[in-house]
Amino acid sequence: MAKDSYLVGLIGTGIGPSLSPGLHEREADRQGLRYLYRLIDIDVLGVGPGAVGDLLRSARDTGYDGLNITHPCKQLVIEHLDALSPQAEALGAVNTVVFEDGRAIGHNTDVTGFAASFARGLPDVPLEKVVQLGAGGAGAAVAHATLTLGAERVTVVDALTDRAAGLAASLNRHFGEGRAAHATPDRLPELLASADGIVHATPTGMAAHPGLPFAAELLHPGLWVAEVVYRPLETELLRTARALGCATLDGGGMAVFQAADAFRLFTGREPDSARMLADIAEMAGVVESSAG
Amino acid sequence: MAKDSYLVGLIGTGIGPSLSPGLHEREADRQGLRYLYRLIDIDVLGVGPGAVGDLLRSARDTGYDGLNITHPCKQLVIEHLDALSPQAEALGAVNTVVFEDGRAIGHNTDVTGFAASFARGLPDVPLEKVVQLGAGGAGAAVAHATLTLGAERVTVVDALTDRAAGLAASLNRHFGEGRAAHATPDRLPELLASADGIVHATPTGMAAHPGLPFAAELLHPGLWVAEVVYRPLETELLRTARALGCATLDGGGMAVFQAADAFRLFTGREPDSARMLADIAEMAGVVESSAG
Repeated sequence: MAKDSYLVGLIGTGIGPSLSPGLHEREADRQGLRYLYRLIDIDVLGVGPGAVGDLLRSARDTGYDGLNITHPCKQLVIEHLDALSPQAEALGAVNTVVFEDGRAIGHNTDVTGFAASFARGLPDVPLEKVVQLGAGGAGAAVAHATLTLGAERVTVVDALTDRAAGLAASLNRHFGEGRAAHATPDRLPELLASADGIVHATPTGMAAHPGLPFAAELLHPGLWVAEVVYRPLETELLRTARALGCATLDGGGMAVFQAADAFRLFTGREPDSARMLADIAEMAGVVESSAG
Repeated sequence: MAKDSYLVGLIGTGIGPSLSPGLHEREADRQGLRYLYRLIDIDVLGVGPGAVGDLLRSARDTGYDGLNITHPCKQLVIEHLDALSPQAEALGAVNTVVFEDGRAIGHNTDVTGFAASFARGLPDVPLEKVVQLGAGGAGAAVAHATLTLGAERVTVVDALTDRAAGLAASLNRHFGEGRAAHATPDRLPELLASADGIVHATPTGMAAHPGLPFAAELLHPGLWVAEVVYRPLETELLRTARALGCATLDGGGMAVFQAADAFRLFTGREPDSARMLADIAEMAGVVESSAG
């Protein structure tokens, strides 16, 4: 008997350093599957983001079981799909496409992945007043997740007022009026003083954008701090918060659980997320040292 | 370190029962490679043979390392390639495409595969007068192989006179005037009476076309008999010839060596053809019994 085999990939730009191939393939190897995760970089191909529809069809025709989709194609891909999961529909963004019986179904495991990571890493924290910094694509996904987890009110903070207002309005439509608000970063001092926790969803703290996303003195031990950045796993924000005694959640969990959820969608098999968390710690470390 | 990974496939019609995925993947597994061989069936996709160009581009764009090509696309694919190997160019047919640095290079491992199988299985037989039955695609490939191996004269026999004449003319252009001739099947008695051996390259003897391709009494112990059919490995022709004491070569060797040559082109690694011969014996047996 040939062993079960799966062909999946990632469409986006600048995806060369992605950890997704390693996360998926290592777990598949442990499960005894034949599993190949290919990177389909629209920059390398020399095409624009609008080519995502052609690439989707190309992948389906050549035997792909599914695809992950990342920047800048998460919205553009939607018009080429046959159906959406509730999370993807609510968010208006797709990061996972499954080919089933000739149909292409869109999902969003950024939402489910952050929710799973949060529920595992910060299971008992209060969720009455949550501040979220960053209203971009990752911010939209994690705000949906936080509200799905039961946060009473999320205040979205972004220097781009229109983007913050748009996300808050969308969240209110989906979760009920009053569940979301928006603000500019100058209001962070008052917001954080009375918040239960903060979700950080900007690129600050990544190797290319080092530093803190706001002044360290705005942190206090009463806050939990959840990070979306996962390279490095230990950002300056998390280091500073932990030193103060804050409960913290690194971005590795979201990266792992979005991959685990996609793996489950692609294969119908249950991934072992504990083993995948160990993988990402090892791989993120390897990437850092090789970049250093 | 991620292990070396390869994504390859087969484009053609009616390829569901192909043994190529198993031949390639088993050998790759033994070499510790991550290797996926996908079937891209133009009938299943509901497109015509002319879609081979689009499928070739789709495969290249989505990260394929190479493709095998089979009926009815072996000629049609050529206009979409950047270069051809000498065998593919001489034959005017491609069964293997390798993507290298953005270029698509066409090869023909039917030719090299039959030659390797013949050299291994019938190393010392006389090659002065060879009769070949069948002037279709497989026939063209094996006639090129037989002449490359040093046959002095190959007489191509086919009920379709134009096809036989066309192949003979093409062989004479490539290998030198007088190396090839053509004839109709009614001349088989005189041709076989004085021949050294016969290459059988029609579908007769396959499960769907049982029986002998010509009257049993035309065989004699002075003939060697090489078969292209490999399902079943033991055709009625081979059984009859062996009972007479003829040296024989079954079609499994060509199937294995064409796959082994493609594997080498795709990966740059040396396959173990002895292990692959054991694989095909096992797989062809499995297919027979499951079909029965």
